[in-house]
Amino acid sequence: MKKVMVVMGSDSDLPALEPCMETLKRFSVPFSVRVCSAHRTPLVAEELSRTAREQGFGCIIAAAGKAAHLAGVMAAGTTLPVIGIPIKSSTLDGLDSLLSTVQMPSGVPVATVAIGGAENAALLAVQILALADGGLAEALLQHKKEMAEKVMKKDEKVQKQYND
Amino acid sequence: MKKVMVVMGSDSDLPALEPCMETLKRFSVPFSVRVCSAHRTPLVAEELSRTAREQGFGCIIAAAGKAAHLAGVMAAGTTLPVIGIPIKSSTLDGLDSLLSTVQMPSGVPVATVAIGGAENAALLAVQILALADGGLAEALLQHKKEMAEKVMKKDEKVQKQYND
Amino acid sequence: MKKVMVVMGSDSDLPALEPCMETLKRFSVPFSVRVCSAHRTPLVAEELSRTAREQGFGCIIAAAGKAAHLAGVMAAGTTLPVIGIPIKSSTLDGLDSLLSTVQMPSGVPVATVAIGGAENAALLAVQILALADGGLAEALLQHKKEMAEKVMKKDEKVQKQYND
Amino acid sequence: MKKVMVVMGSDSDLPALEPCMETLKRFSVPFSVRVCSAHRTPLVAEELSRTAREQGFGCIIAAAGKAAHLAGVMAAGTTLPVIGIPIKSSTLDGLDSLLSTVQMPSGVPVATVAIGGAENAALLAVQILALADGGLAEALLQHKKEMAEKVMKKDEKVQKQYND
Amino acid sequence: MKKVMVVMGSDSDLPALEPCMETLKRFSVPFSVRVCSAHRTPLVAEELSRTAREQGFGCIIAAAGKAAHLAGVMAAGTTLPVIGIPIKSSTLDGLDSLLSTVQMPSGVPVATVAIGGAENAALLAVQILALADGGLAEALLQHKKEMAEKVMKKDEKVQKQYND
Amino acid sequence: MKKVMVVMGSDSDLPALEPCMETLKRFSVPFSVRVCSAHRTPLVAEELSRTAREQGFGCIIAAAGKAAHLAGVMAAGTTLPVIGIPIKSSTLDGLDSLLSTVQMPSGVPVATVAIGGAENAALLAVQILALADGGLAEALLQHKKEMAEKVMKKDEKVQKQYND
Amino acid sequence: MKKVMVVMGSDSDLPALEPCMETLKRFSVPFSVRVCSAHRTPLVAEELSRTAREQGFGCIIAAAGKAAHLAGVMAAGTTLPVIGIPIKSSTLDGLDSLLSTVQMPSGVPVATVAIGGAENAALLAVQILALADGGLAEALLQHKKEMAEKVMKKDEKVQKQYND
Amino acid sequence: MKKVMVVMGSDSDLPALEPCMETLKRFSVPFSVRVCSAHRTPLVAEELSRTAREQGFGCIIAAAGKAAHLAGVMAAGTTLPVIGIPIKSSTLDGLDSLLSTVQMPSGVPVATVAIGGAENAALLAVQILALADGGLAEALLQHKKEMAEKVMKKDEKVQKQYND
Repeated sequence: MKKVMVVMGSDSDLPALEPCMETLKRFSVPFSVRVCSAHRTPLVAEELSRTAREQGFGCIIAAAGKAAHLAGVMAAGTTLPVIGIPIKSSTLDGLDSLLSTVQMPSGVPVATVAIGGAENAALLAVQILALADGGLAEALLQHKKEMAEKVMKKDEKVQKQYND
Repeated sequence: MKKVMVVMGSDSDLPALEPCMETLKRFSVPFSVRVCSAHRTPLVAEELSRTAREQGFGCIIAAAGKAAHLAGVMAAGTTLPVIGIPIKSSTLDGLDSLLSTVQMPSGVPVATVAIGGAENAALLAVQILALADGGLAEALLQHKKEMAEKVMKKDEKVQKQYND
Repeated sequence: MKKVMVVMGSDSDLPALEPCMETLKRFSVPFSVRVCSAHRTPLVAEELSRTAREQGFGCIIAAAGKAAHLAGVMAAGTTLPVIGIPIKSSTLDGLDSLLSTVQMPSGVPVATVAIGGAENAALLAVQILALADGGLAEALLQHKKEMAEKVMKKDEKVQKQYND
Repeated sequence: MKKVMVVMGSDSDLPALEPCMETLKRFSVPFSVRVCSAHRTPLVAEELSRTAREQGFGCIIAAAGKAAHLAGVMAAGTTLPVIGIPIKSSTLDGLDSLLSTVQMPSGVPVATVAIGGAENAALLAVQILALADGGLAEALLQHKKEMAEKVMKKDEKVQKQYND
Repeated sequence: MKKVMVVMGSDSDLPALEPCMETLKRFSVPFSVRVCSAHRTPLVAEELSRTAREQGFGCIIAAAGKAAHLAGVMAAGTTLPVIGIPIKSSTLDGLDSLLSTVQMPSGVPVATVAIGGAENAALLAVQILALADGGLAEALLQHKKEMAEKVMKKDEKVQKQYND
Repeated sequence: MKKVMVVMGSDSDLPALEPCMETLKRFSVPFSVRVCSAHRTPLVAEELSRTAREQGFGCIIAAAGKAAHLAGVMAAGTTLPVIGIPIKSSTLDGLDSLLSTVQMPSGVPVATVAIGGAENAALLAVQILALADGGLAEALLQHKKEMAEKVMKKDEKVQKQYND
Repeated sequence: MKKVMVVMGSDSDLPALEPCMETLKRFSVPFSVRVCSAHRTPLVAEELSRTAREQGFGCIIAAAGKAAHLAGVMAAGTTLPVIGIPIKSSTLDGLDSLLSTVQMPSGVPVATVAIGGAENAALLAVQILALADGGLAEALLQHKKEMAEKVMKKDEKVQKQYND
Repeated sequence: MKKVMVVMGSDSDLPALEPCMETLKRFSVPFSVRVCSAHRTPLVAEELSRTAREQGFGCIIAAAGKAAHLAGVMAAGTTLPVIGIPIKSSTLDGLDSLLSTVQMPSGVPVATVAIGGAENAALLAVQILALADGGLAEALLQHKKEMAEKVMKKDEKVQKQYND
């Protein structure tokens, strides 16, 4: 199975990314985690993205804050799908990260998820890999079902509390 | 090869989506175009998304403006990757469309591209399908090269104009 | 008397909605509370909205955060008035919820109240039901009077503190 | 049948409100149109709202731009449901109108529709009046069906254009 | 000397307004403090503003949050200068209050100060009253001098800390 | 009578300020118009503001766009009331001008009107001067009455068009 | 004298940059103009920035729109001062470009000028080069004087028009 | 070596500026720290900026919040490069400070860094001074290398934690 590369601009983003790694594990998708800055280690970023396909990666998840260029830099260097997670910075509530990640020019897309959307980034990666993996596709359906069941259980509980 | 479904909330979005269809054609990726509204024909949207995988689609591109729910509604009904294009509406410059498309809750991702990013949505779809199609992967590399060459030609021209 | 349906996208919205339920109780308006997600249990949402009128509901209150589609999804399935409460999410201060709820396309309105405006959503529901219920109309007038009196008492207190 | 009062802050808002009046006519809902400014004729606004219920109105639609206080002022004077339409002003793209209309304090709700959402304001008024009028309720269902059919016809046309 | 009326939409705004009252006291400007809501006690607001000039007031300071209509409502009822203080609400960081206060339509100005600018509202009121009161004008010059001296003392202290 | 100083950062602001001058003329308030830039002629700005009171001015109106510092710079140099008009610049729709003008630190207020609010700036100046001028106060009341009458005439016209 | 490198993400930015080149010419500062995209020709950008100092450049001006990464990418590769010009894109009025350019993480600054601030970018470059070039410093003083004189001439003209 | 002047609008900005002073010390760049307000001590600001070049300064760093005029006022008085640090104020998350600092009119640039970007302001100053100081240029390269090494060490640590 193709692997997922999870890159973050700073190790301070690790806690925000935990749900990403947990979700990938839950689906038994192999992944590598890297710290690599678009601005401080640009050559590492360049090499990681340029060689990602041949290294067996199927998808890159890149997380960064503020003027969040990491996902764009990775997308510049590869033709693999790159998923961007805008990280909420200490000011502007993540709006800067969101716009820096999503407003990519024509020719170099970044698949952007919500501000802090680490779990969804992982799910999107799984959905992408599932195109060539029937088992993953099945697991995603199962996951969707379980999500629905959880909501319905909470619904029942709330109904008991309020409607009786 | 898996097909791409291109769904728009209103046929008034057609001109904004032309670059999407052109790009898919350029890469010879088969696609269907549908008009389907999250709010006016929700059951059609539900059926389209629920049956997309079995109909041979590998990816859905959904474009909508204002309180742009279409991509989210499609993502609710499928485990295929859903790419969202926020369409610039007549007020708020597309910020409403962007936030309505990208800020999805955990469990149901939408891979969002830039406001009006029709070409990038198509490229992202091609990148996703290319994971299981070596020919597409090769074509993407070629496309990346051509983009670079175009920029470099413009660079030469501008250099001649200014630097001599 | 017609009932009010209160739907929330997640049970984590319960505390924010308490003033809504309290206000409905205060006016002795019968109501049901449901947890139902536009994205995780879309078919439940569809059924709830489609059958709401025949189930005796006169009005639906829907609360959600981030890319807040729940009110729009409910409005897509019914011709009852749907009141939307944008819930403040952890980023962007509720602006995403507000725009996702209020910026509905022509044909499918959502009556949007302030970010976190749970009490006002309930009052709006009561105002709507009061059109066919003279008792409720009277109670609303009484409530308006009491609000004014409370402000005037505070005014007296502040006047004593500062103006003497 | 109860009437709808349509109030606007300035007669320059008339063109933006045309879809509102057309929609009310389409549903044969009786209505009055008034020009009345929260800031220039506040006493007229006060009287209009205070006497609206006894004058046979069931609902008030108020449209204004910039620091759009009209809907709030009407809501202060009545217990009828008040629907607010934020009008796009020459600067800030209607964001000021939206926030001034929707962010009402507890106790005095305004049912806010999208920026420039004149048609939806009328539909919301019809939905409200339909609670006590089976004919209107039926007409709304019919309208919903026709909207869906229009979308489906456009879908067919687009399918023919692209998918064959 | 003319008096200053300080009106707030809710007594919860009292702490935010303390610097306003302190500043007025410091300049020995007589003032009244009132709680009065544009939406809950509109008739009180109307009377307060209509009779303000004849009651000996020279200026009105109005503070409110969210869809902050109070200053506008006061300005509608008087030809005295009305100073608006946008109060930071629990969401949107006061942007809603600012736009609701400052974006007044032609004909009815509100002199808006910064979000939470209670001290500056008082100073502006003093500046206005000082036009007809040489003593106040002198006191304002003195106050300006003292402000400058405070900054210069801090400058000296910081210079000692860093530059030696 | 005290004069009003109208200062603008650039003569390109003249058209936007015309309603200001017209309104001052209408009330027969004497005024001077100056072009003076906070950044290009700071010393002129300093002198204008420092000497304004002794030159017989009672109030300063300052208009500027983008990082609109002119009103703040004038307020720094005088204890006269300074009214700021944020001018809509070519980008950001005047939000930059508004925030640069209104968000003044404690101690140095600027009485800010709406973006492009030239007429209101003049009215505010007249209101301020009217405190010491019974004739102006009377004229303002008359102006308020005429505004109301204009709105009521438009109301009649619209009522004829729609309600008969 | 050190040269200035002017880099733009696309040749469509040329018209917006004309005032930059004109200003550099006016000060007789040698410069090169390049088209180079952070996303389409990242390796060219990397080389340009890495070798800029040894090629005799003293300063880099980088202009880009949307998710404007070019200035950041240049700054990642050099220790020369990098000046960023956010270009107004077709949506969001340049806010995306501004935040993507200015919100750089610690360690890699970009000296950001106003949205579309091409002339100021050039002036800033001249100011920087002037530190080691007395002639340039003198020319800047002269330029400042001329700017002031232009404003004062306009002031005279406006004074004649209005104040006589 | 030329000195750097660090000016702040209020001594409450000192903690936010500490990284600036630390960075300047680290590069052994001489600097002075001043407290000086654009609005409370404008004449001090004017003198500081007018005499900065002759006092041996090569660059000015100015930090301020809210309607942050200090950097612009300094830039008005000098032809030295002025670096602006927008300080996050208690409301609006620093957006007001950013726009007030960066959106300077043509002719008077301010080199703006990120909101709260004290370290980057210092680095930018060092980069500017390094144009005429080979030792500083060397130290900057060394600093860039160390930054990269720190990231790479964190990368190794994270790889060990996750990838083994």
